[in-house]
Amino acid sequence: MSINLQSILSENAKCMKASEIRALLKVANHPEMISFAGGLPNPETFPLEELKEIMMEVLETEGRKALQYGTTDGNDKLREELAKRYIAQGLKITKDNIIITTSSQQAIDLTGRIFLNPGDTVLCELPSYLGALQAFTSYRANIVGVKAGESWEEKIKTLIAEGKKPKFIYIIPDFQNPAGTTMNLEQRKEILELARKYDLLLIEDSPYREIRFMGEPYPLISSMDNERVILYGTFSKTFVPAFRIGWVIAPKEIVEKYNLAKQCADLCTPWFDQAVAAKYLEKGYFEKNLVKTVELYKKKRNLMIESFHKYMPEGVTWTEPEGGLFLHVRMKEGYDSRELFKIAMEKHVAFVVGDVFYCDGKGQNTMRINFSFMSDEKIVEGVKRLADSIRELYSREK
Amino acid sequence: MSINLQSILSENAKCMKASEIRALLKVANHPEMISFAGGLPNPETFPLEELKEIMMEVLETEGRKALQYGTTDGNDKLREELAKRYIAQGLKITKDNIIITTSSQQAIDLTGRIFLNPGDTVLCELPSYLGALQAFTSYRANIVGVKAGESWEEKIKTLIAEGKKPKFIYIIPDFQNPAGTTMNLEQRKEILELARKYDLLLIEDSPYREIRFMGEPYPLISSMDNERVILYGTFSKTFVPAFRIGWVIAPKEIVEKYNLAKQCADLCTPWFDQAVAAKYLEKGYFEKNLVKTVELYKKKRNLMIESFHKYMPEGVTWTEPEGGLFLHVRMKEGYDSRELFKIAMEKHVAFVVGDVFYCDGKGQNTMRINFSFMSDEKIVEGVKRLADSIRELYSREK
Repeated sequence: MSINLQSILSENAKCMKASEIRALLKVANHPEMISFAGGLPNPETFPLEELKEIMMEVLETEGRKALQYGTTDGNDKLREELAKRYIAQGLKITKDNIIITTSSQQAIDLTGRIFLNPGDTVLCELPSYLGALQAFTSYRANIVGVKAGESWEEKIKTLIAEGKKPKFIYIIPDFQNPAGTTMNLEQRKEILELARKYDLLLIEDSPYREIRFMGEPYPLISSMDNERVILYGTFSKTFVPAFRIGWVIAPKEIVEKYNLAKQCADLCTPWFDQAVAAKYLEKGYFEKNLVKTVELYKKKRNLMIESFHKYMPEGVTWTEPEGGLFLHVRMKEGYDSRELFKIAMEKHVAFVVGDVFYCDGKGQNTMRINFSFMSDEKIVEGVKRLADSIRELYSREK
Repeated sequence: MSINLQSILSENAKCMKASEIRALLKVANHPEMISFAGGLPNPETFPLEELKEIMMEVLETEGRKALQYGTTDGNDKLREELAKRYIAQGLKITKDNIIITTSSQQAIDLTGRIFLNPGDTVLCELPSYLGALQAFTSYRANIVGVKAGESWEEKIKTLIAEGKKPKFIYIIPDFQNPAGTTMNLEQRKEILELARKYDLLLIEDSPYREIRFMGEPYPLISSMDNERVILYGTFSKTFVPAFRIGWVIAPKEIVEKYNLAKQCADLCTPWFDQAVAAKYLEKGYFEKNLVKTVELYKKKRNLMIESFHKYMPEGVTWTEPEGGLFLHVRMKEGYDSRELFKIAMEKHVAFVVGDVFYCDGKGQNTMRINFSFMSDEKIVEGVKRLADSIRELYSREK
């Protein structure tokens, strides 16, 4: 008699869904495939020579410490270096306001763990980041989205009237994933004011902020508040995703809760990787490499937009974001990107179907297109294939 | 108005408790401190030269892959190497029965996440590993312990009669933490039979198995079953804790659940570290270094036991384990190791108070003493200080 697995799963486990992006990462390994799916940095940007130097140095000078267990809150030097950079952006913090997490996905997940009971409401943008939707869903949260142009305050008031006051608001103010939008100063102030007025936590997820191609950045919302904003950051887009280093910045009493939750989750974030990252920042390599990275992605963004203009049929629209890694693409109403995906697979081009970003189950006619990962040649070829796929879909009888 | 944190915590978060071992890791940094607290490997065992070689090789030959995002299930080569080693121990598996986790603490935590609803029962040894008790408690499990000599079957029957059938049994069959005991073949067969008879999952946590100083190993329980045993392993005690590489071995449909839960938790385990670990196994360095590690720990174990015989007052008993990293020490009934801890702190010697390993809140007169981390000199000096501390406690009026 073997175990009846379904019968012993937790209620939360029953709500866990496979990430279609993760599944696509596997498909994307096909040698013929042109993948616009994942949010992968371009491997050209990885600072191989600097890492050789730093890893040898860490092993030589502090190897026996760097290979040992570490503390849950994270490497002191790394947190000091991060603190410096955020203080320069107006945050009033010390390293003790920072906890290193094993990727910013862990930051998201621990947030769910710390704050969400089954049935609790989370308020986010519509669409929003799939990984966050998945994690919050696994805590059986009720996720409510606010569309661009809709009133956040009206939504909050309605929810409170229904006895569903949100536990927190989750937003990505810079180069939102997948929509590519950036909140301006007014919008930032307004949402912070709402969080204050209705006594809500505000989560500012900020993985793409440093990847800005044009214009000036707006201040981090975290720089305007010391009490109710929780900021996430990560090195996955600007340094090395393989190290899985993210962080949470928050008031100390909240950091302490992340610390407790992280003790249960994995005790500490890989310690050697943290020592390497700390040295990488200390030596100023981060800023140097970031400039090159942004340059590269800007070219790729421009090339992709140019190719869209050149090849896309009528009835396709897309964002032209000032930063980040994605275009958000919209087909004519009534067409489903899952149907498109099947055609595109035959032509060996991949993307992420749009509805996975929509907590209301809509967005069928949208998709997310990454421009950071592929070579220039493949960007052009991939857009051609994608345009052909859309043409094929449009030509079908409905 | 600042956030009222307590009022918005999840019910689970309210059940998270700080690890006293983690707190002690911080204390153990004091330069004067002799720490028998953590389960830290000795830094002498870290293969610095081999790591220099391997890291350079990984950066040279597969750097741009090794620094990218990875798959949730883990590095293929690493899983193949692990599979080989377990197949040699009689497990009927392929790499697809293995998922790499960010430390075996994550394996424990995901187990709770996948199987435990609030109020569910977990059956474990009494005492048992603190990190597991913490994680299961954070899912609000009802943890029931079985003492050495007690009947597992009676306990299971009682629980079922009370409508509290355990979701799983969690055991550490080799060099149990903290008790140091090892289940013999008979006991292994018996507990597997019980799991089958009462249709229970059986978790075999095996972090210390390879650190055996004498005698022959008993088979892994996982080698006797393909359906209901979940095995955890880790490199933290036998290679490098800083990489945070652990793994779960289970039937494929169960591995798939870990995969989903891990997608929410942190997407994937650090990918560079996995590439390095795979090469370390491939090159045969693991076995070579393990021999030296076990040799070193055997000497330290012997020295510590010798020092215990030499310095401990009457009314102190301890285990003399065949492997692992710890002695389990028992004072006279009625004495509390937390009182002892205060005295010991003044004398600059640290250990883990015993009651934290007891899910029934008992074990006050016990403590866990690590022998792997400290230098030989400090082992002798630390045991002296500890003996003095116990003498001081015993001399107090009760």
